[in-house]
Amino acid sequence: MSTTEHAYRAVSEERLRDDITTNAEYGAISTDQGWGRTVLTGTDANRGARQYLLDRLDAAGLDVRIDAVGNIVGRWVSGGADPTAPAVACGSHLDSVPEGGIFDGVLGVYSALEAVRALQDAGRDLARPIEVVCFTEEEGGRFSNGVLGSSVASGNRTVEDALALEDGEGVTLEAALTDIGFRGTGRLDASEWDSWLELHVEQGERLQDANAAVGIVSAITGTIRCEVDVVGEANHSGSTAMDARTDALAAASELVLEVEAAANDVLDERGGAVVGTVGKLDVSPNAINVVPGRVELGIDVRDVQYASMERVVERIRDCLAGLETERGVEVSFERPYDIAPSRMSDRCIAALEQAAATVDASSQSLHSGAGHDTMHVADVTDTGLLFAPSRGGFSHSPREWTEWSSCTTATRVLTAGLQRLAEA
Amino acid sequence: MSTTEHAYRAVSEERLRDDITTNAEYGAISTDQGWGRTVLTGTDANRGARQYLLDRLDAAGLDVRIDAVGNIVGRWVSGGADPTAPAVACGSHLDSVPEGGIFDGVLGVYSALEAVRALQDAGRDLARPIEVVCFTEEEGGRFSNGVLGSSVASGNRTVEDALALEDGEGVTLEAALTDIGFRGTGRLDASEWDSWLELHVEQGERLQDANAAVGIVSAITGTIRCEVDVVGEANHSGSTAMDARTDALAAASELVLEVEAAANDVLDERGGAVVGTVGKLDVSPNAINVVPGRVELGIDVRDVQYASMERVVERIRDCLAGLETERGVEVSFERPYDIAPSRMSDRCIAALEQAAATVDASSQSLHSGAGHDTMHVADVTDTGLLFAPSRGGFSHSPREWTEWSSCTTATRVLTAGLQRLAEA
Repeated sequence: MSTTEHAYRAVSEERLRDDITTNAEYGAISTDQGWGRTVLTGTDANRGARQYLLDRLDAAGLDVRIDAVGNIVGRWVSGGADPTAPAVACGSHLDSVPEGGIFDGVLGVYSALEAVRALQDAGRDLARPIEVVCFTEEEGGRFSNGVLGSSVASGNRTVEDALALEDGEGVTLEAALTDIGFRGTGRLDASEWDSWLELHVEQGERLQDANAAVGIVSAITGTIRCEVDVVGEANHSGSTAMDARTDALAAASELVLEVEAAANDVLDERGGAVVGTVGKLDVSPNAINVVPGRVELGIDVRDVQYASMERVVERIRDCLAGLETERGVEVSFERPYDIAPSRMSDRCIAALEQAAATVDASSQSLHSGAGHDTMHVADVTDTGLLFAPSRGGFSHSPREWTEWSSCTTATRVLTAGLQRLAEA
Repeated sequence: MSTTEHAYRAVSEERLRDDITTNAEYGAISTDQGWGRTVLTGTDANRGARQYLLDRLDAAGLDVRIDAVGNIVGRWVSGGADPTAPAVACGSHLDSVPEGGIFDGVLGVYSALEAVRALQDAGRDLARPIEVVCFTEEEGGRFSNGVLGSSVASGNRTVEDALALEDGEGVTLEAALTDIGFRGTGRLDASEWDSWLELHVEQGERLQDANAAVGIVSAITGTIRCEVDVVGEANHSGSTAMDARTDALAAASELVLEVEAAANDVLDERGGAVVGTVGKLDVSPNAINVVPGRVELGIDVRDVQYASMERVVERIRDCLAGLETERGVEVSFERPYDIAPSRMSDRCIAALEQAAATVDASSQSLHSGAGHDTMHVADVTDTGLLFAPSRGGFSHSPREWTEWSSCTTATRVLTAGLQRLAEA
C-alpha cells in the first residue's frame, strides 16, 4: 500500500510534540512532580491556549468558528469531499484541573489536528468533511461539574443556561468568555455529525499492565453523585456521656463503609465495573473537643450498567434510613448528577479496531471509568473513544505522562480510523 | 445567725451582674443566637477585659500583681488575718473561645471578687488572706492547647516555655502580653496556697436535669488526645477498581467506629465516665471524584480513671495495626496531650457541701468532663470545683446561659465555702 492509501504514515511525532509542549506553556506551574499546568476556563492561560489553537488550525488551512459557549471547531473539506455531507468530528478539550498534567484533553485536540495534517500531506481526498473540535470546560474547575461545552453541543443543556453559570466569585461564563474574546455565536450541533472520535489518555494502568498500544473503549461508565448531610448534635466531648450523644461522624462512618460494601457486593453479584466512593467528607465544627454535629458527604457511584448503580444507591438510602432510626441523626439526600452509561457505537469501535490492525498497534478493549465529552456526544451520534497508555496511571496531576512514541502510535490509529469513517 | 456570721447574705446579684455584663462588652460579637464574645489572649478585647478587672479589684481595695505570663492576682488580707498565712485562692479566667458565651470563666473570676466584697461588707475577719485570680489563656485559642496560666502557676510548665509560645502568625505570648501591658514579673506559685476554689458554669445538663442549684465536683476527668494520620493512595474514583484501592477514608471510618465501640465497652466493663470522640477529621484531597489518599483524625479520650483511658487508647492502637495489615494503609500515631484525672480534695469538697447546706442550696455530686485551671492547681494544693447550672447545657457558644439567680446562689455557696476555708 502507498502512503496515499494510509495517511497514518504521514503522522509527525515532531509536529504533535511541538503542539503539546507549546500548549503546556499556557498556565504552566512550577512543580518538582513532573510537568504541570492550571488552565481554567476564561483565564489568561485559557485565552493563550485557545489562541494558539486558532493559529494552528489556521496554519493548516481549516475554517474556524467559535460558538456561543466558546467551543472551537476547525473544519477541513478535502478536494473531493461533499461539503454538505455530515462531517466526521474529532477532538477533546484544552482546559485542565488545577495543577493538572499536559496531556489530558490536549492530546485529543492536537492528535485530531495532526490527523488532518497527515491526511492533507498524504493527499487523501475524503467523502466527508472533518471537524477538529475543542470543547469548553471539560474539567469543570470553574463554572460547572464538567463536560460543559459538549453538554451544549449535544443539546443536553441550553446555551442560555450555560452562559448564565457563575464561578465562585459570581462571574458568569458569558462574561469570562467575552473577556478572553471567545464568546462566539450560534451553537455547535453534534447531532449533525456523521460520527465522532476522541483520543484521550487512559488515566489508569490497564494498558500499561496489558502492554497494549491503544485501548478501544466499549462503554463509558455512568456516574451518579449523591450529596448527603448527616445532622446530629454538636456537644462538648468531655461533658457529654456516650449514651447522650448524637454523633454525626460516627453515623457518617457507617455510611462510608456501607458505600464500599455495597459496591463490592453488587460487583460480586452482577459483575461489571461497579465502583462506589466517598471522596468528600466535611465535619462540623471539626474541633477535637466537640462531638461532631454535622457531616456532609459527597458520594460517587459508577458502572457500565445503570441498574447496578441504582442498586448501590438503594443500599445508600437504606443505610441512611437505618441511621435515622438507630442513631437518631437527621439525614438529607440529593442526587444532583446522574449520567447513564454510554455505549460506544459498533461502527466506530470497528473502525478503530481495523485502524489498530492497519497501524499494527496492539489494542485492548476496555471501559472508561472516567467521564469524557464523548459521553454527551454519544447521545446524538455514533461515537468512538480511544485511549493512549498513561505511565503509572497518574492523572489530574503533573505526574501524568504518556510517552511521545505512545502519543504518536495512538494518533496514527486515530488517523486511520478517521480516514475509514470519512471515506465511507 | 447574723449576717456577720454568714457573709453569703451580703452577696449582691446586682454587682455580680454588672461585672459580668460589663465584661461581656469586651470582644462582643453580633449574633442572633444569644450573647457572645470573642476574647483571645493578648487582643484589644483581652486588654479591655483585664483592665476592667484591675479597676474592680482596685475599687474593692485588693492589692494587685501581675505575673510574667499575665496571671492577675488581687489579694485581700482582712483586719485580723495573718498576712504570712497561706492564702485561700479563688478564681478562673477571662479569655473565651472564638464566639463563646459570656459566663465561661467570667463567672468564676467575678464571683470570687463578689465573695470578697461580701466578706468585706459582712465585716468578716478571716484567719487567712484571700486571693482572687484570673489565669491567662484557659481556652487555648491562640498560643496553646489551653489551661496555660495555671500550668505555669502549678509549675507544670516554665515561665520561659510559656512566654516563647507562638500564635499562628509567629507572635510570641511574651510579645502579645507586652503589647497589651500585661507582661508582669515573677511567677504566681499555686503551691503556696492553702487551698483553691473555682466556680464555673457546668457546660452540661446534669444540674438542670436534677434540678440542683449547684454541682460539687468529685473529680475532673483526665484527657488523652491522639493525632492519627491514615495514608492510603489518592486515585481517580472512576478508573480505580474497588480491589485496586487503598482508601484512607474507608480505613479511617473503621477507626471512628472503633473509638466509639471501645469507649462503650470500657464503660460497660469498668464503669466511670469514659468518653471517646473523633471530633476532627480532615480528608485529602477531599474531592468527590478522587479516592481519599489521606485522612487526619483528632481523637479525645476522657475518664476519671486513667487506666480506663489507657484501655481505650490501646484499642485505638490495635485497630490501627489491623488497618495496616488488612487495608494496606500506613498510619502514624501521636499522643501530644495527656493529662491524668484530678481528684478534688476531701476538705474542699466538705467545705462546699457544708456551704451549700448553709445557703440552703440543693447540691449534686458530679465529675467534670471538661478541663479547668483547677486540674493544674490540684497538682500542688487542695482544690474544690463548684458548678452552676447551664441552661440546655450549651457551652462555647453564644447560647450559653446561666440564670442570674443561679449565678447568685452559686456565688453564695462559694462565699460560704471560702469563709469556711479562710476561717480555719
